Amino acid sequence: MLFPELETPAVLVDHATLLRNIQSMAKGAQAAGVQLRPHIKTHKTAEILRLQLEHGATGVTVAKLGEAEVMASAGANDLLVAYQITGEQKCSRIKRLQDQGVRITCGADNREQIEWLDRMAGTMATTFELAVEVNTGLDRAGVLPGEEAVRLAHAIATAPNLRFRGFFTHEGHAYSADSPERVAGIGTRASQALVATARDAIQAGLPVEMVSVGSTPTARAGAWAPGVTEIRPGNYVFHDRQQIALGAAAEHDCALTILATVISRPAPDRAVIDAGSKTLSSDRGAHGSQMEGFGNVQGPFPRRLIRLSEEHGVLAVSPDDPLRPGDRVRMIPNHACVVSNLHDWLFVVEGNRVTAQWRVAARGRVQ
Amino acid sequence: MLFPELETPAVLVDHATLLRNIQSMAKGAQAAGVQLRPHIKTHKTAEILRLQLEHGATGVTVAKLGEAEVMASAGANDLLVAYQITGEQKCSRIKRLQDQGVRITCGADNREQIEWLDRMAGTMATTFELAVEVNTGLDRAGVLPGEEAVRLAHAIATAPNLRFRGFFTHEGHAYSADSPERVAGIGTRASQALVATARDAIQAGLPVEMVSVGSTPTARAGAWAPGVTEIRPGNYVFHDRQQIALGAAAEHDCALTILATVISRPAPDRAVIDAGSKTLSSDRGAHGSQMEGFGNVQGPFPRRLIRLSEEHGVLAVSPDDPLRPGDRVRMIPNHACVVSNLHDWLFVVEGNRVTAQWRVAARGRVQ
Repeated sequence: MLFPELETPAVLVDHATLLRNIQSMAKGAQAAGVQLRPHIKTHKTAEILRLQLEHGATGVTVAKLGEAEVMASAGANDLLVAYQITGEQKCSRIKRLQDQGVRITCGADNREQIEWLDRMAGTMATTFELAVEVNTGLDRAGVLPGEEAVRLAHAIATAPNLRFRGFFTHEGHAYSADSPERVAGIGTRASQALVATARDAIQAGLPVEMVSVGSTPTARAGAWAPGVTEIRPGNYVFHDRQQIALGAAAEHDCALTILATVISRPAPDRAVIDAGSKTLSSDRGAHGSQMEGFGNVQGPFPRRLIRLSEEHGVLAVSPDDPLRPGDRVRMIPNHACVVSNLHDWLFVVEGNRVTAQWRVAARGRVQ
Repeated sequence: MLFPELETPAVLVDHATLLRNIQSMAKGAQAAGVQLRPHIKTHKTAEILRLQLEHGATGVTVAKLGEAEVMASAGANDLLVAYQITGEQKCSRIKRLQDQGVRITCGADNREQIEWLDRMAGTMATTFELAVEVNTGLDRAGVLPGEEAVRLAHAIATAPNLRFRGFFTHEGHAYSADSPERVAGIGTRASQALVATARDAIQAGLPVEMVSVGSTPTARAGAWAPGVTEIRPGNYVFHDRQQIALGAAAEHDCALTILATVISRPAPDRAVIDAGSKTLSSDRGAHGSQMEGFGNVQGPFPRRLIRLSEEHGVLAVSPDDPLRPGDRVRMIPNHACVVSNLHDWLFVVEGNRVTAQWRVAARGRVQ
């Protein structure tokens, strides 16, 4: 089938661009001597996971256990859940993954959680492996770098049923930068803080295997300090309008696009397409970024996607734009990671042919 | 099971509140002598559709054919697709629904679409039933009220393979109002414009069965002019934070809430929960509204949900708030219609018991 024949709205993934993105990040990591543990929240898809594993990924990152379960069944066997675990049910699910032979490391950022996980692991006759989440500026979860982080590491390392793996941070505040230089600066400073914390821990006699940073813009900038052992970019498989805005990608690096159909041209300066916030999300970017508009619409005419309701997108067009109902438009969304999560299927395209249909297997696995 | 034992994040629907909302809207419509054709985009759930049909809904509204197909298989047999249809595949799908005995009316707002649908209906040896979408101020799709709308109605009525049903509008610009009075004013003016258009059409000799308006805030305000034949509210089954802000609902009218767990208390003024934009969406309201924050968090302490990333929500809390990792919080989201679309399951609660689990059967049916 040719992709212009697809029913719309449809999420297209250009296979050549996807593969180039996967290979290029893997080569960059290899050249720098760091491991690559991509975050799969961006694609949630078994087929893309396998491409990442074939091309040099040494492990996988997820946010939620639901994602971990899907990725484990798709072949991932070394998972970092970059998230704090709470609740007995979630502990049982970790144990079940371990019993299947999956190595699983979870995040920790406070003492009571560590004590509680130690008791749970004891009760379940297992060992939970933990890494300390460090807040290097995003101000979300995580302890501050330095003393506090080392104290938590010590608490894990000395708990009978826990194993300490290292430190990780998500330098997502890079998404608020307004130039590639500032992105790189944020990445460098965040990783330096993490490396310094790891050194303090090593000096205190703690074994630190993992010094892990992660975000696509800082990874694309190669902005990590010596001493970092692994990087965890996610968005790089697809890229999106926000990565373009940050200078981390060009239009031709964007593997994920939305195909939509014009359903109305009610005014000379307005056209309406069949993709709204239930197709594109209403994200203006990651981590609360506030970009103008909702997508880069491809084509020779200036077409700005200025407004979304649930199933409608409003394009501001020029009066001489010949766009009519039934015409197709293709666009790069603001934030690819939330687009894939809205859809059950990705349509893989090579040139203008649809060559596969991949299920977004971990879509909606928020638990 | 008691709902505090559910894994989180989870979408809860309070059965008593849901039923009260459904009954109250049905009674209001009946008392006013208008038909009720609720928009199911809010819940996308067979069980809630059936409650609406049991309690006085005379038809159903959808935006997308995918929703129509799911609702037809759940028992709806009179559907308005309040949307412009493009493409042969979609015409075939309409024909298939008709062959199953479902009456289906679609939207139209331009002459070429009408001519094209007439040809398609002829080719398929069927009749497509159309209603003209009128733009009463939302400035999305739709023709302007008056002459232009009547001309389109005439084009439909005189086409050999089409049947003209009437006019509809979505007065979604009511969501930009800043007081209940302005909501009512918008609803009244929009419906007056639609009724006037219908009168013009009747004077021109056209049969007008349907004069249809629809939005929850204007319906809650009873803001429709004499001559309206049906209303199409959607959100009223659940309500949400935006309806509260518009004065269209109180907290106790909100049937849909999110149950989340605190995963981190990294600072005295900050707690982090396991619900982010993949649970709540990043909507600040409907139709591009820009409310502050992302949810009304229930409980005795002031807790503002100020920031979302994909799987994290950041609560601004006061230093004396005892919230700790593992604690549960429950909140009313900004926009219920996009929340249900992110999840596969709704957990039905009666008191603190979970009494059912309903599949969001039309979730993601954007095509």
